[in-house]
Amino acid sequence: MNPLRSLLVKTNLLKSYKVIYNIRKYVSSNNSLLQKDQKNVYLVDENDNSDHEINIAAFNKFTNRSFTCGELNTEHIGLRVSMCGWLEFHRMGKFLVLRDGYGQTQFLIENNSELAKKLAQIPFESILKIEGTVVARPADMINRKQATGEIEVLVKSLEVLNECKSQLPFNIREFQKAKESLRMQYRYLDMRFPEMQRNLRVRSKMLKNMREFLVDDCGFVDVETPTLFKATPGGAQEFVVPTRFPGQFYSLVQSPQQFKQMLMAGGIDRYFQIARCYRDETSRPDRQPEFTQLDIEMSFTSMEGIMKLTEELLQYSWPSFLDPIPRRFNRKSFKEVFEIYGTDKPDLRYDFKIRDCTEFLESNDAYAGCLVFHKPLGNLTKSVRERLNINQFPGTKMIMKKIKYKDDFAESCAKILTREVGEKIFDKCELKEDSIVFLVFGEKNNALKRLGKLRTDFVDHLEECGHKIKKAGMHFMWIVDFPLFEEEDGKLCSVHHPFTSPNYEDLHLIRTNPLQVRSQSYDLILNGNEIAGGSIRVHNADLQKELLSLLDIKTDSLMHMLDMLSLGCPPHGGIAIGLDRLLSLLLHTKSIRDVIAFPKTFDGKDPLSGAPNVIGEADKKLYHIKSIE
Amino acid sequence: MNPLRSLLVKTNLLKSYKVIYNIRKYVSSNNSLLQKDQKNVYLVDENDNSDHEINIAAFNKFTNRSFTCGELNTEHIGLRVSMCGWLEFHRMGKFLVLRDGYGQTQFLIENNSELAKKLAQIPFESILKIEGTVVARPADMINRKQATGEIEVLVKSLEVLNECKSQLPFNIREFQKAKESLRMQYRYLDMRFPEMQRNLRVRSKMLKNMREFLVDDCGFVDVETPTLFKATPGGAQEFVVPTRFPGQFYSLVQSPQQFKQMLMAGGIDRYFQIARCYRDETSRPDRQPEFTQLDIEMSFTSMEGIMKLTEELLQYSWPSFLDPIPRRFNRKSFKEVFEIYGTDKPDLRYDFKIRDCTEFLESNDAYAGCLVFHKPLGNLTKSVRERLNINQFPGTKMIMKKIKYKDDFAESCAKILTREVGEKIFDKCELKEDSIVFLVFGEKNNALKRLGKLRTDFVDHLEECGHKIKKAGMHFMWIVDFPLFEEEDGKLCSVHHPFTSPNYEDLHLIRTNPLQVRSQSYDLILNGNEIAGGSIRVHNADLQKELLSLLDIKTDSLMHMLDMLSLGCPPHGGIAIGLDRLLSLLLHTKSIRDVIAFPKTFDGKDPLSGAPNVIGEADKKLYHIKSIE
Repeated sequence: MNPLRSLLVKTNLLKSYKVIYNIRKYVSSNNSLLQKDQKNVYLVDENDNSDHEINIAAFNKFTNRSFTCGELNTEHIGLRVSMCGWLEFHRMGKFLVLRDGYGQTQFLIENNSELAKKLAQIPFESILKIEGTVVARPADMINRKQATGEIEVLVKSLEVLNECKSQLPFNIREFQKAKESLRMQYRYLDMRFPEMQRNLRVRSKMLKNMREFLVDDCGFVDVETPTLFKATPGGAQEFVVPTRFPGQFYSLVQSPQQFKQMLMAGGIDRYFQIARCYRDETSRPDRQPEFTQLDIEMSFTSMEGIMKLTEELLQYSWPSFLDPIPRRFNRKSFKEVFEIYGTDKPDLRYDFKIRDCTEFLESNDAYAGCLVFHKPLGNLTKSVRERLNINQFPGTKMIMKKIKYKDDFAESCAKILTREVGEKIFDKCELKEDSIVFLVFGEKNNALKRLGKLRTDFVDHLEECGHKIKKAGMHFMWIVDFPLFEEEDGKLCSVHHPFTSPNYEDLHLIRTNPLQVRSQSYDLILNGNEIAGGSIRVHNADLQKELLSLLDIKTDSLMHMLDMLSLGCPPHGGIAIGLDRLLSLLLHTKSIRDVIAFPKTFDGKDPLSGAPNVIGEADKKLYHIKSIE
Repeated sequence: MNPLRSLLVKTNLLKSYKVIYNIRKYVSSNNSLLQKDQKNVYLVDENDNSDHEINIAAFNKFTNRSFTCGELNTEHIGLRVSMCGWLEFHRMGKFLVLRDGYGQTQFLIENNSELAKKLAQIPFESILKIEGTVVARPADMINRKQATGEIEVLVKSLEVLNECKSQLPFNIREFQKAKESLRMQYRYLDMRFPEMQRNLRVRSKMLKNMREFLVDDCGFVDVETPTLFKATPGGAQEFVVPTRFPGQFYSLVQSPQQFKQMLMAGGIDRYFQIARCYRDETSRPDRQPEFTQLDIEMSFTSMEGIMKLTEELLQYSWPSFLDPIPRRFNRKSFKEVFEIYGTDKPDLRYDFKIRDCTEFLESNDAYAGCLVFHKPLGNLTKSVRERLNINQFPGTKMIMKKIKYKDDFAESCAKILTREVGEKIFDKCELKEDSIVFLVFGEKNNALKRLGKLRTDFVDHLEECGHKIKKAGMHFMWIVDFPLFEEEDGKLCSVHHPFTSPNYEDLHLIRTNPLQVRSQSYDLILNGNEIAGGSIRVHNADLQKELLSLLDIKTDSLMHMLDMLSLGCPPHGGIAIGLDRLLSLLLHTKSIRDVIAFPKTFDGKDPLSGAPNVIGEADKKLYHIKSIE
């Protein structure tokens, strides 16, 4: 017996169906609801007719229905109910199924030819209100797969609240799912499918839990920051918004980075926001022009503090219908992870680590690495070879081979390297008959990247062929010790952003060997995707100036940041969690669009409303702009 | 004894300082925290060294401090503490005050000339970390006004984490508050004042409570809707965002109205969002180009349902340090309220109702109304008369008078009306010596508006003169039964918006007498401000088409809405609460800018970053626009 129920039994409060019914409902909810409702249950008194509404489920308050279509079961038999929803289906003028966002309920019209005739005239997807009585289904009609499958409702009255007047562009049937473009154009129809209902409802619940953890358990302050801002030097392409001042534009923020740092300087020492961000990255697949991140910043903390907070936050807010996640996540340095997986966001649902074979090369400056798949996993047919042999990685060469006999591999190597190298690698990697091996050599960085891409591409290929390679579950890892800078066209760039703090141990290298300087940053990866990233920020104005100068970023546009750092700014750091991606991963959707209520297409269009659109000349005049080709 | 504590005492769990300390803290928080922490307290075990961290306050988790500067009191005496904050003040190389977002704490340097010398060199507003021991203040040094005024901390070590390197543009002293423009330019300094700390923290807490109520208590789903949208016909001036498609623009949403209606058609039957909205209304004072509203929509509900929900929501989320608000708010029809107060947002902190005196006029089509202030309240000096006599109301005339003797008023009336009218009004309004009376007559609508403006202007004048007219507290009222249409330049316009449902009782008047049709809408006013407004929406496609045609709005740009209504849309309605305004009213701030972290000036500029700003030619080329004068 659950604790609440046992408490009520002891205290003699458990007297009526009303109370029992409520307890059942609360117990099926999460703990916080249980506590909240514990308070309410104490208020219950069968003879009290005031409007406590304790007997109305949360989601039925303030409405004209007494139950949703997903709520009734054998405990409700005999109850007079009032329900609203879509007419999903009817047959024989007798049975009908009503659907809403919570589920489906079957209704039965008994010996009432008037109602039956009426029903036959109503188009599917019309909105009905039905009153009736809950009865048990005959034993042979019970549907165990359906939450409401043990009952049906005898129809007493039936009212059409809104008739579906047009032909539906697609039916609301699981097995008839429409193309995505049509689903987006009629998003409100797409949402009637249980999957979209689940996605949006889980999203809401998870965000609620995140807020609860941050505010109640950790004392964070939720602060809304502006989205109409000024262009940030470097970073993504930003949307612009013309104003009534000729030639002057806002830029839509790509993240609240500057604002959250200012909040730290302002004494809001624990800030979070579920923030809308904007990036105009139409060329990148599965991105949205506007997206949501959980943005967090804290003063007087450390990498350790932020990582621990993030772990506890995810644990607290993780949906209860999924397997729990570990209390702490593994950590690896960027260097280590890159050398093992050829990427900084390895998919840890499968092993297949890169074996360093550089020792066998004669040349001193080259690198060689191998990926080996020991189990006999398909063949390297011509089309597979072609798919895997795309070389975007200058300065690298590859040998790919399915081993047929012992000397096979050495022979292949002989053509490009030497026979001996092949033999040594054969031994080191313990190759055997049917092993598939990818050997990449040349410039180290690119060779590793190529191996990283081969690793995921070959596994994807194997999965497509029906091999189950990826383990189930959620595989998290922190990647730390990133380099602070990288080089692009001979110039230093930030690996994260210009406000990221160097690792203080490497400060002495900043002028002499900047590429060796590690940053105080951390990325969180989940099943091969970066879902969060953050850093300890620079809080010292002089250091920030030096970094900007190394990065060749002019200080004029960032004077407000430098002022802020020089007027008493606490040391601080934070993280941003990509919520669209996180939800998409944990709900196993094909695209982030499936966890967004009204997404745009890959090129930023909204098929529903037709945005973007032409605007009037008056608007252009007001904002001092002219359209050009 | 509070219930939690008594429970713990009974169950023998209350054994240690650790627990007592925590209880004290939880009890000082609100009920929801108490419940949550009740769970935690059960976990406490003095001998358990795992990382439950039950002895660390929420806001100190994951940081390098053990206490904030607002936390210590006599219960902590003897504790070794570690604290971080701004050096607010030091004197005699001995005392120093550290400040953070939670309060101030006094530190004492005892017989340590090294530390004293160091302290003397540190500029105010530098960020320090201090370790030390809590001691009681000498009896004559106790400051009862300060939360931490009974203790001080003996400094053991002191570290400068970040020196304040520049001259402060203004000091962080209550009595030296800077001009608003400077406060906005250095917003992060302005935030260090206790008032801004309180405003932002109360805002966060209130929004958290609203979400808690809606999700946990009412089963609402928090859905994020796009801000990059399409121009909405009618309504406010919308910002536009050029895209990579020549001549095509997004518009920034002025409200999620269309999206929330689509959610209803999609089965998310209880939606809310704390939504960012955009309106380019630079000419209106105390508005922001981007602002926040709590946006709510429900299916299968009624005006009654939404109003009740709103009342319970406000009651639940109302800050506990304020007086509680009534469970239900009074309601009045638009017609009644307009005739009594000359406005649809009357300030109910004072009475002064308009008395209808039309009966005494000879002309049939004119209106006369009086406002009377009986108590002797100041004089109608020339400057007051000038201030009050601004006539923006065509077709109206005014007599304003302070009564000196009985026939005084009749004499004044004789000049424009007749003596008899004056006498009758004198009697009806029970005028007497020293009464101040405003009589306005002429076109009814404008006369009432003029009286409404006189009512607030004269009360504002009296308050400025030191009369206390406005009652304290929060005075709510629902205004209902608005007309659906109003006439502007001979054309019908929506009083709310084109999706507002007519009152079904008046449907027969829609073609014949549209101005007489009432809508199913409701505004909530608080102390003379509209803080929320909403309506039951049109859910029938044919009715919506008819309304759009009456309003002369082309249907092309709203086809997606008409489609949506015709494909099975539930009856629905909702409300939007203006959070910036609500917070400003309940925190008694001068402007909504004081409850917004980073507000813009009245003309949409951000003095902090300098937005808006010129953008590069590359951006303009990418977005196919040219700037013109």
